[in-house]
Amino acid sequence: MRTLISGGTVVNSGGGFAADVLVEGETIAAVTAPGLAAALGVTADRVIDATGRYVLPGGIDAHTHMEMPFGGTASVDTFATGTAAAAWGGTTTIIDFAVQAKGTSLLSAMDKWHEKAGGHCAVDYSFHMIVSDVNDTTLKEMESCVAAGVNSFKMFMAYPGVFYSTDGEILRAMQKAREIGSTIMMHAENGIAIDQLVAQALAEGRTDPVYHSLTRPPELEGEATHRAIQLAAVTGAPLYIVHLSSRQALEAVTTARDTGQNVFAETCPQYLFLSIEDMARPGFEGAKFVCSPPLRPADHQLDLWRGLRTNDLSVVSTDHCPFCFVGQKELGRGDFSKIPNGMPGVEHRMDLLHQGVVRGEISLSRWVEISATTPARMFGLYPRKGVIAPGSDADIVVYDPKATQVLSAETHHMNVDYSAYEGMELIGKVETVLSRGSVVVDRGSFHGREGHGEFLERDLNQYLL
Amino acid sequence: MRTLISGGTVVNSGGGFAADVLVEGETIAAVTAPGLAAALGVTADRVIDATGRYVLPGGIDAHTHMEMPFGGTASVDTFATGTAAAAWGGTTTIIDFAVQAKGTSLLSAMDKWHEKAGGHCAVDYSFHMIVSDVNDTTLKEMESCVAAGVNSFKMFMAYPGVFYSTDGEILRAMQKAREIGSTIMMHAENGIAIDQLVAQALAEGRTDPVYHSLTRPPELEGEATHRAIQLAAVTGAPLYIVHLSSRQALEAVTTARDTGQNVFAETCPQYLFLSIEDMARPGFEGAKFVCSPPLRPADHQLDLWRGLRTNDLSVVSTDHCPFCFVGQKELGRGDFSKIPNGMPGVEHRMDLLHQGVVRGEISLSRWVEISATTPARMFGLYPRKGVIAPGSDADIVVYDPKATQVLSAETHHMNVDYSAYEGMELIGKVETVLSRGSVVVDRGSFHGREGHGEFLERDLNQYLL
Amino acid sequence: MRTLISGGTVVNSGGGFAADVLVEGETIAAVTAPGLAAALGVTADRVIDATGRYVLPGGIDAHTHMEMPFGGTASVDTFATGTAAAAWGGTTTIIDFAVQAKGTSLLSAMDKWHEKAGGHCAVDYSFHMIVSDVNDTTLKEMESCVAAGVNSFKMFMAYPGVFYSTDGEILRAMQKAREIGSTIMMHAENGIAIDQLVAQALAEGRTDPVYHSLTRPPELEGEATHRAIQLAAVTGAPLYIVHLSSRQALEAVTTARDTGQNVFAETCPQYLFLSIEDMARPGFEGAKFVCSPPLRPADHQLDLWRGLRTNDLSVVSTDHCPFCFVGQKELGRGDFSKIPNGMPGVEHRMDLLHQGVVRGEISLSRWVEISATTPARMFGLYPRKGVIAPGSDADIVVYDPKATQVLSAETHHMNVDYSAYEGMELIGKVETVLSRGSVVVDRGSFHGREGHGEFLERDLNQYLL
Amino acid sequence: MRTLISGGTVVNSGGGFAADVLVEGETIAAVTAPGLAAALGVTADRVIDATGRYVLPGGIDAHTHMEMPFGGTASVDTFATGTAAAAWGGTTTIIDFAVQAKGTSLLSAMDKWHEKAGGHCAVDYSFHMIVSDVNDTTLKEMESCVAAGVNSFKMFMAYPGVFYSTDGEILRAMQKAREIGSTIMMHAENGIAIDQLVAQALAEGRTDPVYHSLTRPPELEGEATHRAIQLAAVTGAPLYIVHLSSRQALEAVTTARDTGQNVFAETCPQYLFLSIEDMARPGFEGAKFVCSPPLRPADHQLDLWRGLRTNDLSVVSTDHCPFCFVGQKELGRGDFSKIPNGMPGVEHRMDLLHQGVVRGEISLSRWVEISATTPARMFGLYPRKGVIAPGSDADIVVYDPKATQVLSAETHHMNVDYSAYEGMELIGKVETVLSRGSVVVDRGSFHGREGHGEFLERDLNQYLL
Repeated sequence: MRTLISGGTVVNSGGGFAADVLVEGETIAAVTAPGLAAALGVTADRVIDATGRYVLPGGIDAHTHMEMPFGGTASVDTFATGTAAAAWGGTTTIIDFAVQAKGTSLLSAMDKWHEKAGGHCAVDYSFHMIVSDVNDTTLKEMESCVAAGVNSFKMFMAYPGVFYSTDGEILRAMQKAREIGSTIMMHAENGIAIDQLVAQALAEGRTDPVYHSLTRPPELEGEATHRAIQLAAVTGAPLYIVHLSSRQALEAVTTARDTGQNVFAETCPQYLFLSIEDMARPGFEGAKFVCSPPLRPADHQLDLWRGLRTNDLSVVSTDHCPFCFVGQKELGRGDFSKIPNGMPGVEHRMDLLHQGVVRGEISLSRWVEISATTPARMFGLYPRKGVIAPGSDADIVVYDPKATQVLSAETHHMNVDYSAYEGMELIGKVETVLSRGSVVVDRGSFHGREGHGEFLERDLNQYLL
Repeated sequence: MRTLISGGTVVNSGGGFAADVLVEGETIAAVTAPGLAAALGVTADRVIDATGRYVLPGGIDAHTHMEMPFGGTASVDTFATGTAAAAWGGTTTIIDFAVQAKGTSLLSAMDKWHEKAGGHCAVDYSFHMIVSDVNDTTLKEMESCVAAGVNSFKMFMAYPGVFYSTDGEILRAMQKAREIGSTIMMHAENGIAIDQLVAQALAEGRTDPVYHSLTRPPELEGEATHRAIQLAAVTGAPLYIVHLSSRQALEAVTTARDTGQNVFAETCPQYLFLSIEDMARPGFEGAKFVCSPPLRPADHQLDLWRGLRTNDLSVVSTDHCPFCFVGQKELGRGDFSKIPNGMPGVEHRMDLLHQGVVRGEISLSRWVEISATTPARMFGLYPRKGVIAPGSDADIVVYDPKATQVLSAETHHMNVDYSAYEGMELIGKVETVLSRGSVVVDRGSFHGREGHGEFLERDLNQYLL
Repeated sequence: MRTLISGGTVVNSGGGFAADVLVEGETIAAVTAPGLAAALGVTADRVIDATGRYVLPGGIDAHTHMEMPFGGTASVDTFATGTAAAAWGGTTTIIDFAVQAKGTSLLSAMDKWHEKAGGHCAVDYSFHMIVSDVNDTTLKEMESCVAAGVNSFKMFMAYPGVFYSTDGEILRAMQKAREIGSTIMMHAENGIAIDQLVAQALAEGRTDPVYHSLTRPPELEGEATHRAIQLAAVTGAPLYIVHLSSRQALEAVTTARDTGQNVFAETCPQYLFLSIEDMARPGFEGAKFVCSPPLRPADHQLDLWRGLRTNDLSVVSTDHCPFCFVGQKELGRGDFSKIPNGMPGVEHRMDLLHQGVVRGEISLSRWVEISATTPARMFGLYPRKGVIAPGSDADIVVYDPKATQVLSAETHHMNVDYSAYEGMELIGKVETVLSRGSVVVDRGSFHGREGHGEFLERDLNQYLL
Repeated sequence: MRTLISGGTVVNSGGGFAADVLVEGETIAAVTAPGLAAALGVTADRVIDATGRYVLPGGIDAHTHMEMPFGGTASVDTFATGTAAAAWGGTTTIIDFAVQAKGTSLLSAMDKWHEKAGGHCAVDYSFHMIVSDVNDTTLKEMESCVAAGVNSFKMFMAYPGVFYSTDGEILRAMQKAREIGSTIMMHAENGIAIDQLVAQALAEGRTDPVYHSLTRPPELEGEATHRAIQLAAVTGAPLYIVHLSSRQALEAVTTARDTGQNVFAETCPQYLFLSIEDMARPGFEGAKFVCSPPLRPADHQLDLWRGLRTNDLSVVSTDHCPFCFVGQKELGRGDFSKIPNGMPGVEHRMDLLHQGVVRGEISLSRWVEISATTPARMFGLYPRKGVIAPGSDADIVVYDPKATQVLSAETHHMNVDYSAYEGMELIGKVETVLSRGSVVVDRGSFHGREGHGEFLERDLNQYLL
C-alpha cells in the first residue's frame, strides 16, 4: 500500500517547507518536492490532497492515565476509548503510566498494564513506570524495565501513603537512574505539607473545590521542584518535571537549566488555558477542574507560555485522567479532598496548542516541537516518531489551519460526561490522521480499529550528553 | 543533472536518520528511505556513496569580513579566496558585512560590496549592513536595504571615531528596526572606557599583544551587552549580540532570554578553543590572536559551551577577518593597538565544532543547528538553506566523522600566512561539498569555480513572533 | 552652658533606650540613666523635658542644592533659608554640591561655594564636589579637595552638554577615587538615550510635564546604574548611587551588593511618597514634580521600601532643589524639557520617613540609621555627627511621635511657593532642635541664626574595608 | 558599688567613639566624655584603665549546648564550666537549647534545663526551645514558653528518628509561631537523604571521619534551607537558619532576604576558619571536627565572610557542643556516624572574629554587631544586652587589640581535651570582663562565681515589623 500526501506544507521542528510525503506500508518512504512522484512516474494507491494544509508528525502525548485506579474509582477512558480520542485529536502515540502498587513489583505492574492495553489501542502506545515502593528488588527491576523498553520512572513527592516516596527513596532511585541512563520523572509538590493544609481546611469547613487549589499553594510546587533538582544534582540523574503549573516551579527549572543541568519540564494545556477562577465556579462545577498540581491564578499562564518559547518548558502533555462528573467527581461533594484528581484532555492538546500559534505565543515549528519532536527525543522514540522523515513511522496529521470548531462534551470522543473547555471556539482542526500508514481519522470519520496500536519499546533520553 | 547521495545518515537540527538524498539540478528533490530510488527505478547521473558518513545541510557562516578595510590595511581573503576556503570547510553560505563609512550612504555601501563580491564567490553569499552613521537619510535607507534583501543591521559600541554609535543613535536605529521588523546586531564592548584603558596601557609602556585583552576586560563586554539589551527593551527591537566571548556577556543574555525578550547571541570558535594564554605567547606570536572582543581566560570556555547547549548562544559564526602576520599583524609591534583586529577561521568552523560533538559538549543535531539551521532561520534563509529537505538548495556536506586531520597554514586554503590552530589534531573531516547541486569539493580536490556563488536576498528573522 | 535633656528615649541606629543627655557647650558630655545627673548633684543651665519624646541625633541630608544655577535660573533657597528650613525639620547637617562648570577648576568651584555658604548657614554644612570636566588638572585637584575635607565626587551620566561625563571620563575619575580612597557619587540615567527620546517627544507635540517621566523610562536608569557598577568593578572604586528611583536601578544595586562590591545607594522621599500620577495632574500642576530621575509608577514605591529595610538602599536624602512654580517651573509651559529639574524637600525628610515607622515599613532605629547615622558614616562625619554619644556634636532632635501636622506651602519654611506634599497629614513632629548645643528650633519658634552653621571637613567613607 | 572604665574607645554596633563608662551596681549609669566624671567631682569605687583598649558590650553566644545528651553520651561542658569559659572569651550571655524529647512536653524540658543551669552559671543565660514532637499540646505549650521568656523554637530537618520534624510538623509549628510572633530556628539539612548517603558509605566501608562531610553535601543544606524558607513564606513565620555552613545555603538566604522576607541566618567560627581539610587529617584526628552541618571545602569561607559583611549572615554563634576526643569522639572509630556531633568553641568566638577585623574582612563595629548587638535584638534582649548604653546591664569587655595569644587545649578553659584551633596565633585578647557590673575575668584571673549568672526572659525578635 503506497500513499501520497501531496500539496501540503510539511512542518517539522526545524521549520516548514512545501513537500509531498510518500508512504510505503507503515513508514514514510520519501519526502519530496511537490509533484515529484508524478514526474518520476511513481504512482500511489491512495492520494491525500493536503493543499492548504499542514502535514505534521503525529502528536505524542507523553502523559496519560487510562483505566487508572484512583481513590476507589478509576479513570473512565479505557485504552480503547482513550487512544481513539487521541487519534481524533491528532495524537498518534501515548505514553501511559504503569503503576507499581506498594508491596508489588515493577514487572508485575508492567504485565498488568500490558494486559490492559494490549490489543486495545487505536494508536501506538508505550509506558513509563511509576515507582512507589523503592527497595533493593525494585531498583534491580529498573534494569529489566529498561530492557523491556520502559526507561523512564516516575516518582511522587505528593500523595503520602499512596505514591509518595521519601527523599531518601528518591535519592536511591535517582542513583540507579544515573547508573542505567534513565530519566526520573517527578510529580513535584510537597505532599507532606499539603496534607497538613488540607486537613486544616477540612477541619475549618472549607470544603469547596476551590480549596483544592488554595491548599496546594504554588510555593509548595516550587519548593518540591527545587528539591527534586537538588537531589538530581547530588546524584547526577536526569530529571523531568511533569505537569508543571506555576511560576515558582518554572523559576526553579529555569535556574537549573541556566547552569546546564539535565533538568526538563512539561506543562499541560489546562495550565495554559484554565485557571483557579474555573475552580471557583458556582455550585460544584469547580470539581471538573480538580487535578494536581491545581489550576493557578491566571497570571501564571503568561509565564508558562514564556517557558514554552524559551524551552524551559520542553513538552506539553495532557495528564489525561478523566473522571465523570456524575458519580465520580461527585464523590467529593462536601469534601474537596475526595474529588478524584484528574481531567480529560488527550483529544484536545494539538488543537489547543495551535491557538498558541494563532495568538502568536509560539511559532508553527515550535508547536510541532513541543507536541511531537521533543517528546519523541526525550523518551527515546526518535526518529521512529516525532518527525516527517523517510524511515519514520507514517504517523501523520493533515491539519487544516483555517477550519474552526467548538469544543463540547456533546461532540468529543473521550469517554467522559463533561468537557473542561465546553463552548470554547478554536481555530484549526485535524483533518486526516495516519497511524503507521493507516488512515485512522479522516474528515470527521473514524477509520481506526481497536488493536491497531502497537507497544513501543523506548530508548534513552536523547537530550543527555 | 540528477545526483543521489546514498547510504548516509541525514542530520537535521531535529536529529538524524538513515536516508538517501536525491538532488535535481540545484535543489533537493527528495529525501528517501535508503535505496528507494533504485527500488522505484529512478536513476541518477551521479551517485555519491555516503555510507558511514553524515549528510549535513551546508554550513552558514553568518559573520565574515572579506576584503575588509581596517586601519589602513584590509583583510587578506577576497570573496574569491574566502568563499573557496569556506567551501573546503563545509560552509556553503557566508553572510558578509557591507560597511557604511561615516558620511556615506547605506546603499552606496551595498553597491560597493556587491561590486566586490559579485561574480567572485565560490558559494552563495549575502550581506548584513554595518550602520556607522545614523541620520534621517540612513534610517530611511534601512527600508531600501530590506527591500534589497539585507535586513540585519550591525552597530558598534566599540571603536569610537570609526564605527562607534552613541546610545542615542543606537536607540534611533533600534526604533527603525522595530518598525520594519529587522534585527539589530551589536558589537557590544564599551569602547569609550576601553579606549581610556588602552591609552593608559600604552602610556605606561605595556605594549605587548596580551594587553589587547587586558585593556578590554570582560566586565566591559558584559556591561555593553546589558546596555544593548536595555535599549532593545525600551525600543522593542530584536537584538543579536555578535561574537560573544565572556561569561559576563553571556549572563546578560541569559537573564534577558529568561524573560522571553527577543535577544540572541552568537559566539565564535576562537572563544571556544583559544584563550588569553595564546595572546601571551612569547615573541610577537600573540598578535596572531588579536581580535575584538579579545580571547579570555580559559575558564570562560566552559560557560560558552554551556550557553551553546542551552541555546543562550544560538549560533556559532567565525568573525573571519584574516590579516597576515608578516606585514599586517606586524604593524602593531611595540603598540598592540595598531595590530589589525581579526583572525582567520572561515575554513575550520564546522570541523572545530565537531570536536564539541566528539567530546560530548553538544549533540550531533545541535552541531547542525548552531552552524546551519539557526543561522538560516535567524537571518531569513530558511528553508532555502539550513536543512536537508525537498525544495531546499542542494547545499550539502558529506562528512566523515572518523577521519582525522591536522590544521596548519601549510595546508589550509585561506589566503593568510598563519593558522590560529597550527598543529591542532581534529577528528572528523569534510569529504564532499555540494553548493546548489554542484560538487565544489570532493575528497581533497576543489571543483568549484569563482562566480558560482549567488547573492541571497534574505527575509525576516524567523524567531520573532 | 550645660543643657540636660531628660526623660526621653534616646534612639540611635542600634536601637532605643531610656536615657538623659547632658550637653556641655557644643558637644554631648554624657548619656546617662534617667535622673542620674540630679542624683549626682550635677546641675544644668537649661533642662529640656523630653518625656514621651524621642531624642534623636540630628538628621543629615546628604544631598541638597542651595542657590544652584540650573538652565538660566537658580534654585530659590539660599544657604540661609535652606538651612533654616532644614533645622525646622530636624536636619542639622546638609551636604551640598559644589559645581565645577566645564572649563573651570574644582578648587575655584569650592571657593565659590564657600563664599555662598560661609557665614549664612543656620546649621552645619559640608560639600560634595560635582566633577563635570575630567582632565589631568581636575584629577590632581581631587587630592586637594580631599585635603580640604571634600572627599566625595559626583558625576553625571545624564545631562549631556552640561554635567555629563563620558564612560572614559568616569573611568579615569574612578581610578583616581580608588587611589585616594574617595567615593564616586553617580547620577545614573542614560542621558544620551534620554535626550533622543525627549527630542522625539517634543517633535511629536508631547510637551506636557508627564512626558518628562515617560521620556526617562526606568530601564534607562537601571541601565546606567548597572553601567556605573561595572565601571566601579573594573576600577575598584567605591560607588554611591544618588536619588535612586526605580525597581530596575534597585535590582542592579542589589545584585552588586550581594557580591560584596562597595556599592551603595540613596533614595529620596519623593520616590517613596509621590508617583507619576502626580506628574499627570491636570493643568500644568505636574511641573511641580519635575525632577530627575522622574517620579515612577506607584508600584515602584514598595520595592524602594523593601530596599530601605534590607539596606540595599542605605540612605534617604532629599535632592532638595526648589524652583518656584511661578516664574520658574513655568518656563517649561509648552516644553517640559525647559521645566527646571528639582523639588523642594529639605524640611520634610525626617517627618516623611517617620510615616514609614508609623506604617510599619521601617523600624524606629532604622529611621535614625537611614537619615542620620549612615550618612554620617558614609560621608566621614561619624562619630562627630549621626549618633547620640559623648564627644559627639550636640546636634539633637527632640521628636514628638504623637503630634500631628499638615504639610503646606502656607506653613513651610522653605523659600518656595508650593509644597509637593500640600495637604498631606503626618503623624509625628519635631519639637526642639539643637545644633552644636544651641537651641535652633523650639516648639514652633525659630531661635537659630544665620552663620551659626560651620563648614565640616569630612573624612573617608567608613563602610569601606 | 560604682565602677569607672576610663580612657577607652567604646564600640557599639553603630561605630566607635572615645568615652568613659560609669557603672552603678549591675547596670551602666552613664557613658560620658573622657574624664567627665572627675570634672564633675564624681568618684568611683573602682577605676579600670582602658587606655588603648576597646570597651565592648559583652558578647552574646546565641547557640550553645551545655550538658547536652547526644547519642548515649553528653557534651562535656556543664553550665558551670561552659559559662566560665564563655566569660574568659568575652561572652557574657549564652542562649542554650532546652530539648524536648519525643513524647515529653516543652514545659518539662524547660524545667529540666532550668534545673541544670540554675545556680551554676558564671554569666547570664537564656534558653531556646527545641521542639521535636509537634502535636496539639506542644503547640499550645509554645504560648507558655513565650510567657516564660522563651520565644524562639528550634526544629530539625536533620536527624530522622531523633529531633527530625516532617515538613507538615514544621508547617504547623510555623503557623503557631506566626500567630504568637515567635521565631522558628532551623537546622536545615535534608536528613532523610543524608541518612541514605551515610548508610551507603558505611556499607561500602567508607568509615573515616571525612565521610561525615562527604555524605552531607552542601546541596542538601542548600535544599533544606530553601525548603524552610518556602514553608516560612507559606505560613508567614519569621525564620532563623542556625549554623549556616555553605555557599548553597547562603544563596537561598540571600535570595529570600532580597525580597524582604523575614529570614535570618547565623554562621559559626568553625565554618569561617576550618575546612574539610581538617576532617581529612591523618589518623582519627578528623573526628575532632565532626559537627553538623559539616566543615566545607575552604572556598566556602569567602562566601561566608561576604555574607557577614552584607548582613545576609546576621549573627555568629558557636554551636558550642564539646565532646572529648578520648572516650567520646573515639566512639566513632570505624564508623564515622557514631562520632558525637559537635565542637568546642564558646571561649574563642570573640577572639576569632576579631581576626576578621584584623584581616579587613569586617569592620570594628560590625564585629560588635554580629557578636552582641544583633543577637540581642534578634532574641529580644536589647537594650538590656548588646549595647554600651545607660540602663543596660553592665556586661562589658575591655579588649586589648594589640595583645597576642596562641590557642591551645593546654590553656583554654573549656572542659574538653582538645582544641579545634590548637596552635593558632591570634591578635587581640580579652583583658577584663564585667557581668552585670561584677568583674568576672581580669588580666588572666578568673573572679567570677558559679551562680552569678541569671536567667534572662526574652522578648520578641526586634527585626520584625
